[in-house]
Amino acid sequence: MAETLKGALIIGQSGGPTAVINASAYGVIRTALDADCITKVYGAHYGIKGVLEDRLYVMDEEDREDLDKLMYTPSSALGSCRYKMKDPNEDETDYKRILEIFKKYDVRYFCYNGGNDSMDTCNKISKYMKKVGYDCRVMGVPKTIDNDLYGTDHCPGYGSAAKYIATSVMEVARDTVVYDTGVVTIIECMGRHAGWLTAAAALANLREHCCDLIYLPERDFDMDSFLADIERVYKAKGNCIVAVSEGVHYADGTFVSEAKTSGTDGFGHAQLGGLAARLAGIVKAKMGIKTRGIELSLLQRCAAHCASKTDIDEAYMAGKAAVEAMLNGVTDKMVGFDCSRDNGYVCREKLIDLSEVANYENKVPQEWINEAGNDITSDFINYALPLIQGETPMVKKDGLPDFARLKRVFA
Amino acid sequence: MAETLKGALIIGQSGGPTAVINASAYGVIRTALDADCITKVYGAHYGIKGVLEDRLYVMDEEDREDLDKLMYTPSSALGSCRYKMKDPNEDETDYKRILEIFKKYDVRYFCYNGGNDSMDTCNKISKYMKKVGYDCRVMGVPKTIDNDLYGTDHCPGYGSAAKYIATSVMEVARDTVVYDTGVVTIIECMGRHAGWLTAAAALANLREHCCDLIYLPERDFDMDSFLADIERVYKAKGNCIVAVSEGVHYADGTFVSEAKTSGTDGFGHAQLGGLAARLAGIVKAKMGIKTRGIELSLLQRCAAHCASKTDIDEAYMAGKAAVEAMLNGVTDKMVGFDCSRDNGYVCREKLIDLSEVANYENKVPQEWINEAGNDITSDFINYALPLIQGETPMVKKDGLPDFARLKRVFA
Repeated sequence: MAETLKGALIIGQSGGPTAVINASAYGVIRTALDADCITKVYGAHYGIKGVLEDRLYVMDEEDREDLDKLMYTPSSALGSCRYKMKDPNEDETDYKRILEIFKKYDVRYFCYNGGNDSMDTCNKISKYMKKVGYDCRVMGVPKTIDNDLYGTDHCPGYGSAAKYIATSVMEVARDTVVYDTGVVTIIECMGRHAGWLTAAAALANLREHCCDLIYLPERDFDMDSFLADIERVYKAKGNCIVAVSEGVHYADGTFVSEAKTSGTDGFGHAQLGGLAARLAGIVKAKMGIKTRGIELSLLQRCAAHCASKTDIDEAYMAGKAAVEAMLNGVTDKMVGFDCSRDNGYVCREKLIDLSEVANYENKVPQEWINEAGNDITSDFINYALPLIQGETPMVKKDGLPDFARLKRVFA
Repeated sequence: MAETLKGALIIGQSGGPTAVINASAYGVIRTALDADCITKVYGAHYGIKGVLEDRLYVMDEEDREDLDKLMYTPSSALGSCRYKMKDPNEDETDYKRILEIFKKYDVRYFCYNGGNDSMDTCNKISKYMKKVGYDCRVMGVPKTIDNDLYGTDHCPGYGSAAKYIATSVMEVARDTVVYDTGVVTIIECMGRHAGWLTAAAALANLREHCCDLIYLPERDFDMDSFLADIERVYKAKGNCIVAVSEGVHYADGTFVSEAKTSGTDGFGHAQLGGLAARLAGIVKAKMGIKTRGIELSLLQRCAAHCASKTDIDEAYMAGKAAVEAMLNGVTDKMVGFDCSRDNGYVCREKLIDLSEVANYENKVPQEWINEAGNDITSDFINYALPLIQGETPMVKKDGLPDFARLKRVFA
């Protein structure tokens, strides 16, 4: 039995939001509100910036009914940030300020809910508190649609985004084959460095073949092969659906979306309209056929109406596990998932050292991508399919989502 | 009691698909399969082109279970076309061919499921059959996400697209306010000439204010006013969400998406990436702030996973009513809706002369748009809200939609 540590808890959300990040926050908040030794539960407004600027919401003031709605409310209810903490050996200013705020509110528990950069922040704060001898337990709660956090089977947020992508690809595929005149449809998914989201398009093929070609940033992009692939599929079936990651890049590292070589795309305007529109334009120019570019944009990370129940439940579980671990005396860890898929899907929490997690990126294994670099193997399907199971418990009013509306009472 | 007419029925789908067009087709098919005097039920492959090319599916061969899934399967299951019929006074070729096919299969019932152009086709065929004295009952079944068909309260397909747009605007709005750094988000909705779809963004404000500005093609677009509107909202709240119709145009009729006046947008590249990206680029250039363009693209018309139950049920009802009317001796009409919203929402079928419907466009009334031309009045909300009620009965397998897969047996 760990020594009882009495004090307040701060939960902060950081980085790009997801459809289920609030379920994790609620896992933390609910468990903390129910714990005797946690005296007060604060939510940091705009992540660590809320701590630095002394802007803390008092979660104890919120109604239970509204907090419950966090289970299906997308995006970061507390606000987020992309604030990069300096190395404390070079500049201690921020850390001193955080310590000051922790002391002011008697904070003894700190949870940070985010992706790679956020775990770096969490790790630095944890190490600093240890160094200065301030008794405080620190835990990271994972979150990212990109699914690129190291040391965990997968990340909360990914399953819901994957479910939305696969569903949308199925629906768009149905839409694009209605005419007897063909069309090449290019669907752009998020993921600057890791192809997990784009790979999710392959799940659409499970019920009916609809996604013909898939390009991830884990392989160098070659425009000639890309065009040849499309031409081959289009000739064979009269249509072609392509999923492509925003992060595909040429062998020299240049992002295809940003390449300015006008010889390649004929436009020379980077970033206007995104990769899908650009590739659709190139295919149209080369092949003289109808094309359409669709960018799933923010929709893929905020579509709570199409969230996976498995993802929601696991997101909550991660938050809950973080607080339970802290109550048991654990600190300086991130909650991760250990999963088995051999006899049905089983997902258990585990704890990983924060210093192990921070700043590593977990990419799609090369052996899960086919040799031609334009499709995904069944290993990926076995991996991802359990993550998209079940439907959101979202309550609707007037036919629309009834999202949480917090009172937001500042301390 | 009408004279019993024994013979086969053809159902064709035409124009752009919707999330519920198959529910209408199923209303026709189910009712026809159950009618004693309808000897066979055919589905035209690719709309009227399937009739012209003698490509008819035998719907009697399909399993009940698969047909039932049409209730939540998006897009045109029979295939569609955008084939413009010539004036029969100038060229009778197509009409003679259609008559030949009708005689070959003893077709006495013809249903055409589509929008404005499709009702024109339906009307021309109806008049031709009457002229040549071929005993055949012809009915139009409305469909269009654009909601611009004349003579009906609204069109099947619109409610589901409106629900998806309002839901997505709510979710995107949640996503874009997470940081303390502001952003202007421009969401592009379909609707070349009518603003019904874009107006649906206003429904998002019913649960929580999130859509700040709305621009429809029913009003001339003025770039200076647009930029001033955004600047005002952004200064006041630090964020701004804008819904804009793909069809907005300047006073001279030029579509904003196609205007090549480089002085205006600084790019001079029409159609690359669409209107949202273009407007986002202009706002960014003028105001020097972060912007994002989101094009809802095909997603808004095929997102069956977010369809309105009211819309699905009405779509089915329209198809059913068309066949029932024909069985009662009616011909040369389109099914429309007569709705009352005074004491709860009531929707009843009515019949409209095909010649009245064909080629007219029903736009958003000017008095439902505010004076500044950047918002919608409560009249629209009262009109549209009943249409997005209820959730799809979609069955999922493996966490993904279990869409109908027809056997497609040709006659």
